Amino acid sequence: MARVKGVVGHGGGPTAVINASLAGLVKAHQRSGDTLFGAVGGIAGLLDARFTELTSLGGDGLWDEIAQAPGSALGSSRRPLAEGDCERIVEQFRRLDVRRFFYTGGNGSMGTALRIEHCARELGYELQVIGIPKTIDNDLLVTDHSPGYGSTARFFACAARDAGEDNRSLPSPICILEVLGRNAGWIAAATALARHAEDDAPHVILLPERRLSLEAIAAEVEQVYRRLGRAFVVVCEGQRDEQGLTFGAHVDRPGSPVHELASNLGHTLALALTAKLGIRARAEKPGLVGRSCGLFASLADRQSAYRCGAGAARAAAIGESGVMVALRRECDDPYETSVFTVALGEVAGRERLLPEPWIAAGGMDVTREFLEYAGPLTGPVPAWRRLPGINE
Amino acid sequence: MARVKGVVGHGGGPTAVINASLAGLVKAHQRSGDTLFGAVGGIAGLLDARFTELTSLGGDGLWDEIAQAPGSALGSSRRPLAEGDCERIVEQFRRLDVRRFFYTGGNGSMGTALRIEHCARELGYELQVIGIPKTIDNDLLVTDHSPGYGSTARFFACAARDAGEDNRSLPSPICILEVLGRNAGWIAAATALARHAEDDAPHVILLPERRLSLEAIAAEVEQVYRRLGRAFVVVCEGQRDEQGLTFGAHVDRPGSPVHELASNLGHTLALALTAKLGIRARAEKPGLVGRSCGLFASLADRQSAYRCGAGAARAAAIGESGVMVALRRECDDPYETSVFTVALGEVAGRERLLPEPWIAAGGMDVTREFLEYAGPLTGPVPAWRRLPGINE
Repeated sequence: MARVKGVVGHGGGPTAVINASLAGLVKAHQRSGDTLFGAVGGIAGLLDARFTELTSLGGDGLWDEIAQAPGSALGSSRRPLAEGDCERIVEQFRRLDVRRFFYTGGNGSMGTALRIEHCARELGYELQVIGIPKTIDNDLLVTDHSPGYGSTARFFACAARDAGEDNRSLPSPICILEVLGRNAGWIAAATALARHAEDDAPHVILLPERRLSLEAIAAEVEQVYRRLGRAFVVVCEGQRDEQGLTFGAHVDRPGSPVHELASNLGHTLALALTAKLGIRARAEKPGLVGRSCGLFASLADRQSAYRCGAGAARAAAIGESGVMVALRRECDDPYETSVFTVALGEVAGRERLLPEPWIAAGGMDVTREFLEYAGPLTGPVPAWRRLPGINE
Repeated sequence: MARVKGVVGHGGGPTAVINASLAGLVKAHQRSGDTLFGAVGGIAGLLDARFTELTSLGGDGLWDEIAQAPGSALGSSRRPLAEGDCERIVEQFRRLDVRRFFYTGGNGSMGTALRIEHCARELGYELQVIGIPKTIDNDLLVTDHSPGYGSTARFFACAARDAGEDNRSLPSPICILEVLGRNAGWIAAATALARHAEDDAPHVILLPERRLSLEAIAAEVEQVYRRLGRAFVVVCEGQRDEQGLTFGAHVDRPGSPVHELASNLGHTLALALTAKLGIRARAEKPGLVGRSCGLFASLADRQSAYRCGAGAARAAAIGESGVMVALRRECDDPYETSVFTVALGEVAGRERLLPEPWIAAGGMDVTREFLEYAGPLTGPVPAWRRLPGINE
């Protein structure tokens, strides 16, 4: 039987485990004897046929090590498809007799994969297209979770726990932790995993699913501060105010360009709260460190990523196309998932927000059901030991 | 022989390993049979005799677990000594027959310890005062390094490595990592440990020991960007410009209060570079997450911290007073240190900057000698594996 040639590409921001999906995909190809190339630099690599053979590499533990590395081993891009790009990509595939295309990314990338699949069909070129889920934002529909989320969620949950411990022992009045996430509050929500005892940080979790006025936030923060002498607040970079504006845009500095504030929301909120409450606030913003931190990668997340890569190879082998690999949770304890596929059209360009039942009344916290969902994805975020009777 | 009573307190910001010093001190007391109390909340606890007995605790692995926990298990404070405070503290000691005072902190706290020691002597109260070094800033004189530094240095070196890997695979034009440190560049310098191959991040390391104009910084950043299509810049929160002003204070927003800019320097620099070069820049600021991150604690650093705690007990047992425990490096490989003591007056209120020979020509990088110094303190920051031929 002739070997089938495939190409894999990465779209959008890397995660701490995207390379685990790549390793799962490559190793499955090595087992089946099919050939897999990597497109270097995402869309640009597809357009210029910058392909590097992956299935010929290995043997020295390469893929096990690549599976641990953050960033995208292939390189990625945010370049959108321009007119004629799909045709050119399919043309490159035809030229090299590439019959399978794997694309790893979020809901935007799944839209890209769908367009390439349509284009190949229109051009009468037989091409299987399989999407592999990847996004720290966890906003892909249908799949239980997206590989990448668990690791970033773990980073920020541990950050809230540890900075909270620091803040508990040397109280700073208002401490704001800005986390990743623009429209969906999945990462902000996961910081609730940091809590183990009453009054543990974070005390206020703002979720972009709920638009909140500065007044409402300030009232909640002040209440915590009056009670504890400190308040630890989590906000994501995309939080909007009650008018749906980038939070603080009209509060802080009239005339400041919104993009400036949007890229620095925690600090903007700190200034606004200090001005409003007369209580000193500071903000921390780990930013990209939170999506790339290799040592914080969650084991469960890396396993999900690897399984999605391997599952994509399996889906291709049985002839599927126009689908994305997805995860179904079979059991919470012990945590188990199975892999299935979903039509690209069901996930492309669509966004999953935090479900309403997982947002606590008041809109500034999550429910126990969310914690039960997220816990297995991050793995344990155990409490640090404390001395009995001190600041407990 | 009657048991001697001692009190230990924490001053200033916690670190990821300050509790390891506490554990070393407590366990040494448990072995000697002397009694040790902890002052809860730093100076406030000393003033109000909020003392909790520590030597009676343990037996369930408590101290081994406390030694792993970030934040200060006793609680700390930044409260400066006011008039009469020393006398009141000595009075509390006299009332409870406390004859040893251990104070864990940086150069400010060593000044506090020295004042309490003088005060006791003036009041004719026999009190041994022993300082235990602790500062992420690594700016204490005499000691080879300060416990707390290695862990924070490891966090930021790994942050630069991982965010650099992310940035290499999805280039963002200018990526700024703001690190901790106001006057001394020790932490900024340590991010150079992230590099393993040519063109690895960080590409530009700004050191507060060198005042630099925006023009000089922009020229360097632009050169890197023109060559690589990306530039990864490290700056500490206290970087000053060529006039000695908080960097960017007069460049960005005339009239902005300096304290606001100072708490957000990376972002301020990003705006200034974007305005000057027309190249998009963004900044990340892990802030307190970088000093509290328990999972990133360096083993060598925790060991240094533990040994300083145990060494303080030993110094007290042989009758020393008015001294701080310090570390001397005996060997780089295998890394070995010994503990000795230095007069508090030699370290109190004094600051150790990065030595000139460790700053590279041009002032925006470090020398190999610095890397040889810092490497054993952070422990390995190994390179992630990359695919051959791609973005190498």
